[in-house]
Amino acid sequence: MNTDTMKPCCISSDDILKMETRTRAAFINSLSGFKSASLIGSIDSNGQTNLAIFSSVLHIGSNPALIGFVSRPDSTQRHTLENIIETRCFTINHVHEAIYKNAHQTAARYPKLVSEFEATGLTTEFSSVLQAPYVKESRIKYGLEFVEKHALNINGTILVIGKVIEVFVPEHCLLPQGGIQIEAAGTITISGLDSYHSTHLLSRLHYAKPELPPTELS
Amino acid sequence: MNTDTMKPCCISSDDILKMETRTRAAFINSLSGFKSASLIGSIDSNGQTNLAIFSSVLHIGSNPALIGFVSRPDSTQRHTLENIIETRCFTINHVHEAIYKNAHQTAARYPKLVSEFEATGLTTEFSSVLQAPYVKESRIKYGLEFVEKHALNINGTILVIGKVIEVFVPEHCLLPQGGIQIEAAGTITISGLDSYHSTHLLSRLHYAKPELPPTELS
Repeated sequence: MNTDTMKPCCISSDDILKMETRTRAAFINSLSGFKSASLIGSIDSNGQTNLAIFSSVLHIGSNPALIGFVSRPDSTQRHTLENIIETRCFTINHVHEAIYKNAHQTAARYPKLVSEFEATGLTTEFSSVLQAPYVKESRIKYGLEFVEKHALNINGTILVIGKVIEVFVPEHCLLPQGGIQIEAAGTITISGLDSYHSTHLLSRLHYAKPELPPTELS
Repeated sequence: MNTDTMKPCCISSDDILKMETRTRAAFINSLSGFKSASLIGSIDSNGQTNLAIFSSVLHIGSNPALIGFVSRPDSTQRHTLENIIETRCFTINHVHEAIYKNAHQTAARYPKLVSEFEATGLTTEFSSVLQAPYVKESRIKYGLEFVEKHALNINGTILVIGKVIEVFVPEHCLLPQGGIQIEAAGTITISGLDSYHSTHLLSRLHYAKPELPPTELS
């Protein structure tokens, strides 16, 4: 790629303000870079299951093992948040190439009594450790206990944090030093609001030290 | 990929607890899926610049335009947080294939008086709108005003939120409906602690509706 042909365009604060709502949403959602493609499974106290795609899953800490996600208070995804508060658990299921269209479809505004599993052709799977449903078709998936939520003053968005209590990973994806080769499980990534991408490993790099140049792990 | 050959391995809460610290960090960091590869540029009130790679950049909201990132209180990246609190601004710069090794090297624990720009072979670039430095070599980059931070009770991690005040994007990456083709700018993605991946667009999908099947945008 020739960077000289990449004429940069500057978009000001005013330009952003003047954008039509959906245009601005598409633009700002693209800025944060590539995102996690995850299906969050939950259940209410009546046993009604729910499944929703999120691109905001993020690592919070390893000890204790904490993963979070951002929930908009005014979205169809509020069923997820309500269920998590009700039954104190949820699952996160990686999206791979064969199920990304089903995963995307979970974002449609189905009524509360419709399970997105059934509506989108995905299958519930249960473990003995927690109540919330997993996605059978997903290859890397984990169960979480709800531990904390934070409302962000600036826009009412809610950061939800869970503690990882069990993990399912294809054996061949586990590296000896603890890392998981998520690309080898077909896990994909999202950009913006609607773009799905597969990945290609460039390299793994050694832990960075000031006195050494960056080096590829063999 | 034949899913039948993917023998799943179940890792329990106890297994996670028993992992060696670095092994657990590699394992849990892989769980959240693909992550943003971003360089955060900042400056202190004496004009000392700082640059650090983060994989925790995330979209918080579009109206107002808010992007956040997670900072560990005990990491080398604390210079970034100190600077942002001091000068109330920062930049986020997408990492592409030609600069990912330099970007990774910014994670080394350089002393405060060493600028990671100089140490890793990247170049500062300034706009007239904010004090913090951009990365000249980066193709998609944006400037932010600091607006809010949240300490997470559970582990002391800090969520830092900024308001987007200007954006630089190669013209050919802008879609008419507001989205940015970040893959076309060579933006890459991170998995785990040390893996860098390029991407391949599978497709863009229409806004999901209950009564319609998932459809590719032409």
